[in-house]
Amino acid sequence: MIAIGERINGMFKDVKKAIRAKDASVIKDLAVRQTEAGAAYLDINVGTAAEDQLAAMRWLVQTVQSACKTPITLDSQKLDVIKAGLEVVDGRPIMINSSNGAPEKLDVYVPLAAQHNASLIALAMDARGVPQNVETRVEIAGVIAMKAMEHGLDMQKLFIDPIILPINVDQKQPGFLLDVFSQIRMLSDPAPHMTVGLTNLSQMASEREMRQLINRTFIVMAIAAGLDSAICDVFDTALMDAAITAEMVLNRQIYSDSFLKAARM
Amino acid sequence: MIAIGERINGMFKDVKKAIRAKDASVIKDLAVRQTEAGAAYLDINVGTAAEDQLAAMRWLVQTVQSACKTPITLDSQKLDVIKAGLEVVDGRPIMINSSNGAPEKLDVYVPLAAQHNASLIALAMDARGVPQNVETRVEIAGVIAMKAMEHGLDMQKLFIDPIILPINVDQKQPGFLLDVFSQIRMLSDPAPHMTVGLTNLSQMASEREMRQLINRTFIVMAIAAGLDSAICDVFDTALMDAAITAEMVLNRQIYSDSFLKAARM
Repeated sequence: MIAIGERINGMFKDVKKAIRAKDASVIKDLAVRQTEAGAAYLDINVGTAAEDQLAAMRWLVQTVQSACKTPITLDSQKLDVIKAGLEVVDGRPIMINSSNGAPEKLDVYVPLAAQHNASLIALAMDARGVPQNVETRVEIAGVIAMKAMEHGLDMQKLFIDPIILPINVDQKQPGFLLDVFSQIRMLSDPAPHMTVGLTNLSQMASEREMRQLINRTFIVMAIAAGLDSAICDVFDTALMDAAITAEMVLNRQIYSDSFLKAARM
Repeated sequence: MIAIGERINGMFKDVKKAIRAKDASVIKDLAVRQTEAGAAYLDINVGTAAEDQLAAMRWLVQTVQSACKTPITLDSQKLDVIKAGLEVVDGRPIMINSSNGAPEKLDVYVPLAAQHNASLIALAMDARGVPQNVETRVEIAGVIAMKAMEHGLDMQKLFIDPIILPINVDQKQPGFLLDVFSQIRMLSDPAPHMTVGLTNLSQMASEREMRQLINRTFIVMAIAAGLDSAICDVFDTALMDAAITAEMVLNRQIYSDSFLKAARM
């Protein structure tokens, strides 16, 4: 699984504080530890921490880049914040998070990603909002895949996010998502990647252990259905173990007595 | 998930010893504790512990019945051992484990189950051995379902076991099984139950923690694909939690902050 570490986000108190105080050590520490925990990308989101979000994004990207060689995910709903991040990236693989599936949005974000040789996360929602059913999500995924082809973005650089809602909002949604994954997998050959903001699934549960149990149970089913990436808490060792084991059980990684260690090397 | 507790089996040293010494306390303790841990059925298998397997089966069944009201699974490859168990059951729900999918076997076991109002586990293999592919397993499952209808065994009393092999024997098999589950679910309406001898999947792994991780990862995928029962180690709390959580995530059980406790009541 392509794990995208979620921790460098101004929504977390320690990161918010670090951004405001320009305390690089907190950010570097999170970058290094998430990498060691198995993050293939480090998500960087300024959140609401700074008045000058562009400057904050530049500082975060440069700080992370000075700490490790891990690929970076530039995360903002604002195009100019994404562009500020793009200005300072040092040539390592990058990802843009995110466009949605509205054609007019894709006509901006897909060429931008292609131009910067970046991967792109695109949400399976459009101007109508988050679809409540399987069909509309798959339909929007189809639009996204078409726009990628139209603008020359390699399917291997496209990450479709069908949007996970907290399980108590509508308990049918996780099951729907499994169908969405299975169908997106059939959209093209090679199929686009698929990712989710996993932590959202269980945010309503009061106990941390319960949230982690729900998250890792869903990720195993989702991997079996075709999911191959998640924006998640890579410090959750049981989650990472579950994802690695799911891929081994599905024969995407060779079994040995030390398959967990092997996957982490 | 309909959990069938695997522990009262002469293959385990403590049970073997208890059968030979007619030590009822060991058996009763396993019966009560497996029930408390969530076993819907208690599997009873004499193994190779006794010279007189018929007498041993009768004693085990009577001992378990004196300890709790939990339904019983009579487990033997020998028809006369199953029949010895049937002689002494006290009217509680029972299950026969197992027939295979050879028509001549089914013509004996299905009427026997129907006559005793028992559920029946039938393995998706026949005289040709364990099928290595998806198609043959589903084909044999079809033969089993047809024989159930022919002999008047309610589909709700049929448990098809598509046979799980250790993951190192052929790493493609667990993925195949997920397809088998999905297809058996479509065989009839209502679909037959499906079960597996889960512990077999990981028996080659040297560390207990690793075996448990593999087992609970597979069961989550399998439940999403349609599996609704397993013969397993019900004392493995993480396994039982994973199965309960899988059913909640799939909307087969209502979410609440205490859904794990609710499922155990």
